[in-house]
Amino acid sequence: MTLPKETKILIVGLGLIGGSYARALTKRGYAVRAITLEQSSVDFAKNAGIVADAAAEIRTDWIRDADLIVFALYPHTFVEWIEAYGHLLRPGTVITDVTGVKCAIIDRIQSMIPDGVEFIAAHPMAGREVYGVENSDDGIFRGANYIVTPTERNTPDAIALCRSLGETLGFARVSELTPEKHDEMIAFLSQLTHCIAVALMTSNTEPHLVDYTGDSFRDLTRIARINEDMWSELFLLNKKKLVAEIDAFSGELNRMRTYLADENTEKMKEMMRISTARRALFDKKA
Amino acid sequence: MTLPKETKILIVGLGLIGGSYARALTKRGYAVRAITLEQSSVDFAKNAGIVADAAAEIRTDWIRDADLIVFALYPHTFVEWIEAYGHLLRPGTVITDVTGVKCAIIDRIQSMIPDGVEFIAAHPMAGREVYGVENSDDGIFRGANYIVTPTERNTPDAIALCRSLGETLGFARVSELTPEKHDEMIAFLSQLTHCIAVALMTSNTEPHLVDYTGDSFRDLTRIARINEDMWSELFLLNKKKLVAEIDAFSGELNRMRTYLADENTEKMKEMMRISTARRALFDKKA
Repeated sequence: MTLPKETKILIVGLGLIGGSYARALTKRGYAVRAITLEQSSVDFAKNAGIVADAAAEIRTDWIRDADLIVFALYPHTFVEWIEAYGHLLRPGTVITDVTGVKCAIIDRIQSMIPDGVEFIAAHPMAGREVYGVENSDDGIFRGANYIVTPTERNTPDAIALCRSLGETLGFARVSELTPEKHDEMIAFLSQLTHCIAVALMTSNTEPHLVDYTGDSFRDLTRIARINEDMWSELFLLNKKKLVAEIDAFSGELNRMRTYLADENTEKMKEMMRISTARRALFDKKA
Repeated sequence: MTLPKETKILIVGLGLIGGSYARALTKRGYAVRAITLEQSSVDFAKNAGIVADAAAEIRTDWIRDADLIVFALYPHTFVEWIEAYGHLLRPGTVITDVTGVKCAIIDRIQSMIPDGVEFIAAHPMAGREVYGVENSDDGIFRGANYIVTPTERNTPDAIALCRSLGETLGFARVSELTPEKHDEMIAFLSQLTHCIAVALMTSNTEPHLVDYTGDSFRDLTRIARINEDMWSELFLLNKKKLVAEIDAFSGELNRMRTYLADENTEKMKEMMRISTARRALFDKKA
């Protein structure tokens, strides 16, 4: 199901993700406006034709005219925006987000917005190692996952609208998870992997690695180019779950280390067979 | 520099790597023969036209006719082959390998081969998550690194020949490392990354990961589809260095965990800035 064509969409925050949403939605014929902090982002988006209009100031008329508002901001900026301007939201408006953690955000936002405004949270599992609307690219949604995280305060209509948004943007799969389960999955799939990539890059100071490396090290450290402001914020907002995932992973890595130190070949192979079978299933379903 | 066109090349072991060598060298006009274990690999290679000839038996005439013999075997099979047939090698022949560990192999091989035969070790840093000559593909050498690991027993001519082989195969960079430094680099760049990928896949039993994942987890676990016989052998042959690399990495990951648990944002960001700078340099030089 795609979004009704007449849906008026406002994007708040024209960065990499907000810009990519704007591209995808404008390309498919939706009227997309955007409010963002920097005039340079406004200029870029208008020149590139990826929005119908954009402004570097709060446009109350646009906020009240929108059916669907997408907040593509850092978690703390999203909360601050709602604190400052949430009262401007018109009852009947559905708001959604792109935030990478959910438990720390959803209750706060839902408790702050006016009656009749509905916040349905979502997480587009897509990104790049570069920032800003200048690098936006709706191709990043192709083959990717979109996760909607409803709570008991959400209506079926808003959940359906949010799922439609994911499908309209071009995501390959739209799933639903509770905020709790989402944060657990993301701690493992996304935050732990970023911790690993960073730790790999900081654990060796050899300056000529690039001359000796194979593809595996390249693949494992691609995400070691990391936006430290965003990721440290996301890590802290999901601290308990991420610490638990680091510990679980460290336990498994240490199990391999022990088998190796003990020259327990059969146990090493057993771990490898399990990983091979799980990863093969992964490829098959992908 | 490319190999002299008249160089007669024999490949022992037509698996993924041996087959890819055969493809690259035949394509560039060299006369390539191959000896391998399975008749099915011989049939495949001959039908695919990637060798001038091949046999599933020891061909003494081919061994004595060759100028350069490439052993593309598991480490223990390479040692066993030299034990059984090394006396057939003709003085003047240069032999090389593709083995992923060096210290455990080089001295043993050099001590077993007849006088006048020279073993110059090399490691092509390329591979795929599939096996066998049927999956061979010389495209895997494009953009990849080739490492020659000479010892004081090697002559400048043989080192130059081995470097030429790497260039002829289409590798992007040919480097030289001591066997000791090679094994240290490979413990970090290749073996540790495989341990991490395996541990990631064994540390979570959620069956629907694929529905929620982003690219980072896919990238970090691509190599979790792993040939357990080959990799457990490589790990054991480089045990001391790999254990040291696991410990160094675990220390860094634990440092991130501590900063996170302590909510030490500044230290977390500092690690991320270092990893970003190192990885950016990596991309630039790649």
